[in-house]
Amino acid sequence: MGWEEEVGNTLCPIAKSLSAVGDRWTLLIMRELVFGVRRFDDIQAQLGASSFLLSTRLKRLEKDGIIERRLYSAKPERYEYYATAKGRALDSILLMLRSWGIQYCDHVPNEEPAVHFRHKASGEVVDEFWKIPHHEWPFSFDTLEGRMSVGYETEREIKRRNFRKTKKAS
Amino acid sequence: MGWEEEVGNTLCPIAKSLSAVGDRWTLLIMRELVFGVRRFDDIQAQLGASSFLLSTRLKRLEKDGIIERRLYSAKPERYEYYATAKGRALDSILLMLRSWGIQYCDHVPNEEPAVHFRHKASGEVVDEFWKIPHHEWPFSFDTLEGRMSVGYETEREIKRRNFRKTKKAS
Repeated sequence: MGWEEEVGNTLCPIAKSLSAVGDRWTLLIMRELVFGVRRFDDIQAQLGASSFLLSTRLKRLEKDGIIERRLYSAKPERYEYYATAKGRALDSILLMLRSWGIQYCDHVPNEEPAVHFRHKASGEVVDEFWKIPHHEWPFSFDTLEGRMSVGYETEREIKRRNFRKTKKAS
Repeated sequence: MGWEEEVGNTLCPIAKSLSAVGDRWTLLIMRELVFGVRRFDDIQAQLGASSFLLSTRLKRLEKDGIIERRLYSAKPERYEYYATAKGRALDSILLMLRSWGIQYCDHVPNEEPAVHFRHKASGEVVDEFWKIPHHEWPFSFDTLEGRMSVGYETEREIKRRNFRKTKKAS
């Protein structure tokens, strides 16, 4: 039985969610939108996905009502991508993946976080143990302010540069 | 650039997490372990994955320290699968996927949930808006009691039956 059948056949909301976002690329696209990266090439540079793959994922996300396109250039026709309310409701999942990753995936003690997040209202540092305040559910990254570490900013700049080089060469 | 390179190169904890669990099958395996389904065939019956695919995923999860095997039969050699502490720490992600699925994926108003969860300590119904109590972070499904709906129990029984039939036929 294939995945699509499984999803069509199930009452399980976890399986339904995973049919929409249970794919590494999809949640990385949503991460880029949280960072305010909205254009196809800029997202592609960070993900390293092929144009075909990224385009397929973006279309599926739009069809599922998780993101929406907004025209920013008429000639040539170009769009920016934005999370819808349904897409923004994935913020809590991204936050939990962040916490789990910091705690359990190649953790280096006292390593600087890739992004320093601070909770705007309380000033609290949002580390891997931070708890969502009860009056702020569902969680939104809009309640935080973030600052990328020099290391992570460098990683992203290198990806942008390599992407431009590869694109020019092709 | 392929996925493995992306992961090897990144400081982003979300990307690191997704390299371990950013796969629909993986989180569905973890869901089965939450339900107490521990044996290869029983997990396979619910996921509908091929033996090869399930076996690959289980080995990877074990290598990543997310699950562990325990021998339950010496002849033939058979194992049961258990979530480790690292694996149980994914409970909050499963809970958020459940909430998001109930709210946004094929939602039928007033539909019976696939699993009725109740918070043991408070007696609260754990619906899609339920908030994890602050003194109970990190969230664990152990703090809830669950009862499957008749519809979902039937769905799972049909899958078990079809799996046995297919297995006998092959």
